[in-house]
Amino acid sequence: MIKEFGLEKIDESLLNRIKEYTKDLHPMLTRKIFFAHRDLKWLFDEYDKGNKFFIYTGCGPSGPIHIGHILVWYFTKWLQDKFDVDVYFQFTDDEKFMYKNLSYDEIQKWLNENLLDVIAVGFNPKRTHFIIDTKHAGLLYPKAIKVAKKITFSTIKSSFGFNDSTNIGSIFFTSMQTVPSFLPSVLKKKNIPCLIPHAVDQDPHFRLTRDILPKLGYYKPASIQCSFLPPLTGNEGKMSSSEAVKGILTTDTPQEIKKKINKYAFSGGQATLEEHRKKGGNPDVDVPFQYLKFLFEESDEKLNQLEQDYKSGKLLTGELKKYAIEKITEFMLEHQKRRESAKQKIPDFLLKC
Amino acid sequence: MIKEFGLEKIDESLLNRIKEYTKDLHPMLTRKIFFAHRDLKWLFDEYDKGNKFFIYTGCGPSGPIHIGHILVWYFTKWLQDKFDVDVYFQFTDDEKFMYKNLSYDEIQKWLNENLLDVIAVGFNPKRTHFIIDTKHAGLLYPKAIKVAKKITFSTIKSSFGFNDSTNIGSIFFTSMQTVPSFLPSVLKKKNIPCLIPHAVDQDPHFRLTRDILPKLGYYKPASIQCSFLPPLTGNEGKMSSSEAVKGILTTDTPQEIKKKINKYAFSGGQATLEEHRKKGGNPDVDVPFQYLKFLFEESDEKLNQLEQDYKSGKLLTGELKKYAIEKITEFMLEHQKRRESAKQKIPDFLLKC
Repeated sequence: MIKEFGLEKIDESLLNRIKEYTKDLHPMLTRKIFFAHRDLKWLFDEYDKGNKFFIYTGCGPSGPIHIGHILVWYFTKWLQDKFDVDVYFQFTDDEKFMYKNLSYDEIQKWLNENLLDVIAVGFNPKRTHFIIDTKHAGLLYPKAIKVAKKITFSTIKSSFGFNDSTNIGSIFFTSMQTVPSFLPSVLKKKNIPCLIPHAVDQDPHFRLTRDILPKLGYYKPASIQCSFLPPLTGNEGKMSSSEAVKGILTTDTPQEIKKKINKYAFSGGQATLEEHRKKGGNPDVDVPFQYLKFLFEESDEKLNQLEQDYKSGKLLTGELKKYAIEKITEFMLEHQKRRESAKQKIPDFLLKC
Repeated sequence: MIKEFGLEKIDESLLNRIKEYTKDLHPMLTRKIFFAHRDLKWLFDEYDKGNKFFIYTGCGPSGPIHIGHILVWYFTKWLQDKFDVDVYFQFTDDEKFMYKNLSYDEIQKWLNENLLDVIAVGFNPKRTHFIIDTKHAGLLYPKAIKVAKKITFSTIKSSFGFNDSTNIGSIFFTSMQTVPSFLPSVLKKKNIPCLIPHAVDQDPHFRLTRDILPKLGYYKPASIQCSFLPPLTGNEGKMSSSEAVKGILTTDTPQEIKKKINKYAFSGGQATLEEHRKKGGNPDVDVPFQYLKFLFEESDEKLNQLEQDYKSGKLLTGELKKYAIEKITEFMLEHQKRRESAKQKIPDFLLKC
């Protein structure tokens, strides 16, 4: 994937450099959940010169938020705290309306739900600026047309799988997605480096962004990519929020989490207790283990212990699931507590324009 | 053209119906400059029921305003006054930026110039609402995406001559052009009929608008179409503002008007004085005569006299040109006087949102 997309691996020397700024390393870095990047070294060189970057990430509101979404956001919050930088957070409600078979009102309903989850992550309201495409269109559209003028249909049709039956809004949309990567530079009237943390499937959008920005006089944005969180059923690929049963949602009750893990989570354990004790389990394909590794087990020591015990057959599938349910539930109850009080905070987060 | 575009001719019975509302008929109607329509009868039926229409027209700011532009606007003002209706006037600065090889700043310069000409026409500031696409994008874009979702690339590529090399902003733009035709219905929360006066070359945009609006729950807009004003050189086709020498501009001095008519205006007269006296001239191809007929000679009696005298050879080319120069100059000096004081009036005309 690194070769195919032209990414660079995050190696030990880069991890060490990050550690110089952050003192400790986030588990998603040491565990290689965030495994690749573009131009991070350049970004830090600029940072050293006093040219602080900002972070751009986002959310396409078309359904409930699952743990695949929030893992990027929790990592983004960590970056914000460690580097003390602004986060521009884009809600692409226009994109989801035009791409999906959902009404405008349904998308707005999901937008209002998703806003709460982003706030619940704990971003710094003084340094975090929400951009909602339909609400900030007055700010975005005049800049998006400058992007659009530089992109032909033939440039994007293969990247996004478009053809003549694609609606003209979906065709235009990538222009709107490009704007936040240079908007702070416009607003502050100086060229500010941009860092985009994202799951690796979003890469086509941001490769295009990197092509366009220099043509408009801005830096190419740097980026940092994470792998997909496996779906509950353990198949390869991305967890889809439209197939709720496959994923754990931020609004799930403890009972739902327990049921989903126990009933659906793919296990790397053996078919019988005897066989498991003898051969051991495979943590690499075991979904409860992977969830602990991606997001819910902060202690490396504990994670290593679980891995060894599972491999050796000492830890049973049921025991591993039970532990994962506890950790996920604990995490979600905290998230949900912050989510409860998020509604009144929305105005503090909206980008002023 | 009527057959090809599926338009209806404005016949005597329709002219009589218009006269019932307006008391007199505008010369552009009696002279068949505005010669075709769609759904005017339906529009008047709704008007009779108390469901007053609004007018939507516009300007694409990419150069100076010539007399081909203002003839539509002066007719529109007449309609506004006679029917006492709102005019929504769209400035498609986004379109011109994306279609033309001009910078954003150049387009904004032309926008600011063109605004003055529209105000100089004399629209009622209480009933006229300017929509500037880049400035009102916050209002337009969330509605444009509802249009865009219903239009595929294949639907519009032939209408607009698009191909894979077309930029994605131009592809999207027709969605923005569609919004003003239902915006008042959105703002006033009821379905209001729309009338679009336009030169016949804009028809593809508005045919599309007619297809889309019922899908969004609004009436198909009615329309009224005028012919092209011939260019100075008398060739068939539309006068282009980028070829200034071919057209008379609203900012031309009396000297420039005189020079343009005397030097460039195609004459329907004969090659020699003797021949002209004998055979007479042809007013149908004579540009000064056509300009008088389209816009500058308000008296039908005077126009008929000129036509007869020119045909008979009594009126010479030089004499006809001299008269046209006088009439055009007189008209333009008045227009320019109103244009002078227009700048301070811009805020009164901008749609509040």
